[in-house]
Amino acid sequence: MDKVLGIDIGGTSIKVGMFSTEGHLEAVTKIPTGEITSEAAFAVVTEGLKKLLADNGFGPDDVVAVGLDVPGPVDDNGKVGMLANIELDPEGLQAAIKRTFPRANLAFVNDANAAALGELWQGSAKGAASFVMVALGTGVGGGVVTGGKLVSGAFGAGGEIGHITVNRDETLSCGCGRQGCLEQYSSATGVVRLYKVECANRGMEPVHLDGPTDTLSVFKACRAGDEAAKAAIAQMADYLGYALAQISVIMDPQMYLLGGGVSGGFELFADDLRAAFRKYCLAPSISTRILPASLGNDAAMYGSAFQAMQG
Amino acid sequence: MDKVLGIDIGGTSIKVGMFSTEGHLEAVTKIPTGEITSEAAFAVVTEGLKKLLADNGFGPDDVVAVGLDVPGPVDDNGKVGMLANIELDPEGLQAAIKRTFPRANLAFVNDANAAALGELWQGSAKGAASFVMVALGTGVGGGVVTGGKLVSGAFGAGGEIGHITVNRDETLSCGCGRQGCLEQYSSATGVVRLYKVECANRGMEPVHLDGPTDTLSVFKACRAGDEAAKAAIAQMADYLGYALAQISVIMDPQMYLLGGGVSGGFELFADDLRAAFRKYCLAPSISTRILPASLGNDAAMYGSAFQAMQG
Repeated sequence: MDKVLGIDIGGTSIKVGMFSTEGHLEAVTKIPTGEITSEAAFAVVTEGLKKLLADNGFGPDDVVAVGLDVPGPVDDNGKVGMLANIELDPEGLQAAIKRTFPRANLAFVNDANAAALGELWQGSAKGAASFVMVALGTGVGGGVVTGGKLVSGAFGAGGEIGHITVNRDETLSCGCGRQGCLEQYSSATGVVRLYKVECANRGMEPVHLDGPTDTLSVFKACRAGDEAAKAAIAQMADYLGYALAQISVIMDPQMYLLGGGVSGGFELFADDLRAAFRKYCLAPSISTRILPASLGNDAAMYGSAFQAMQG
Repeated sequence: MDKVLGIDIGGTSIKVGMFSTEGHLEAVTKIPTGEITSEAAFAVVTEGLKKLLADNGFGPDDVVAVGLDVPGPVDDNGKVGMLANIELDPEGLQAAIKRTFPRANLAFVNDANAAALGELWQGSAKGAASFVMVALGTGVGGGVVTGGKLVSGAFGAGGEIGHITVNRDETLSCGCGRQGCLEQYSSATGVVRLYKVECANRGMEPVHLDGPTDTLSVFKACRAGDEAAKAAIAQMADYLGYALAQISVIMDPQMYLLGGGVSGGFELFADDLRAAFRKYCLAPSISTRILPASLGNDAAMYGSAFQAMQG
């Protein structure tokens, strides 16, 4: 029975989904990993994959495709670029997986791009010809799909929408070294920072924050009527609406999907965001839909499986 | 012998190219037209097309595809939107052409998008998987190609790169009703306006200008050492480089091609433009090429023929 594996590679563990070729998620497992740079580490991964299959009555020969998503650039040819946040030897892992699953087609995908493909395959974007996935996490990632295909980019920078410049007057630097990137305002880090600035401007004490990306507490404060939280979230939505309007004059997608931790507050900022988009967009694009993504943290796992199936 | 017609629809005449299916331009003609909204006007067009074929020894049955480019939006399904600058009944003309050339596949394409496709078929972008055509004319148009396909957009606004916001502080309005669009600075109109502002700032008399889009005179002044012209052209290049950097974080194309009247001054601003792009772009995209287009005013005629051949 043909099976597809989707592997979401994180810093301390990998999450694996076993899918039917029609896109049903049939089983999931988590495999603790350290650095994935040695034959011993590759074996931990491949043994974990084999166990997932065996536990469900399948073997290595049932696997027709294995997709892996990584938190870093992957170019149009599937080559993995510099990975800043995890220790992974992509070629080594690829070779080990290939030896274990000789029938399988392998593919690497950038994690935000994978989330986009997952939503396209089985989520909110099912059947869409074009859309842009906006992943509002610690940073802001994106996945651009047009003509049913992901735009990875000639240099692997396709969908790096967190680095659209939204404020040319910004003096603080983004992680990328440039100033005024969307990510500085609309990521989890950005929302928490904007909230602290709004509190300081009002001489208010911020609510207790569990670290620099704790948007949950900011959203909770907003729901409880905290004016600084409201202002911060409104700013975040305005910058995001502006950035989406910039995307629309270039790609003009059918819809935008919001995922990542910050999208947990979607109902708090959806009206502001849609109003901002309509204010900034070019007239023809005014009815572009802006919706929450539906697969949550599983989206990238779905998408890497889907990508690997494309052959 | 299979032939393809590419028709470039202008306000007072149409230009028609007869192509081989391999992309050789074998003959060209210009047909004077007025409003193309009546059966009589459609007949002027179809008779002109038949004459072009007959003059070269071919007939209506040789025509396998007819492409028409229009100065306005065309959506992903080939439907023509509102045409502000010409009087054309697209459905009527389409029906008349279909009756005349029963074998032919017909397609409408936006003119800037057509120029992009022309460059992809037989111009500077031949063989490129992805690129963006930047048409610097009276306004600024664009054509976005990814995976070898044009991105027309869900609402026909794909490639409307003249409306990327490059200056959020602008108070003057663009033709689109928004403020700070690329088109306000990097179109022919924009360059001439910036030049006049620079002259005023310096208390200088501008050189004689033959209307509001006479970039030729501004370029000539620049070559003769006019400081106001130099400053205006440097500003235009800076805004354009900034806009291209915004495109690269979304699409990350392999190259940019510059066409349209303003690109006639390419050698005057190429260095500034490339430097601005490198200053504003995200690191992975730094070696993206920026080149002049090669088909000049024929690009759209090539591209509409090419699009019609795609079936």
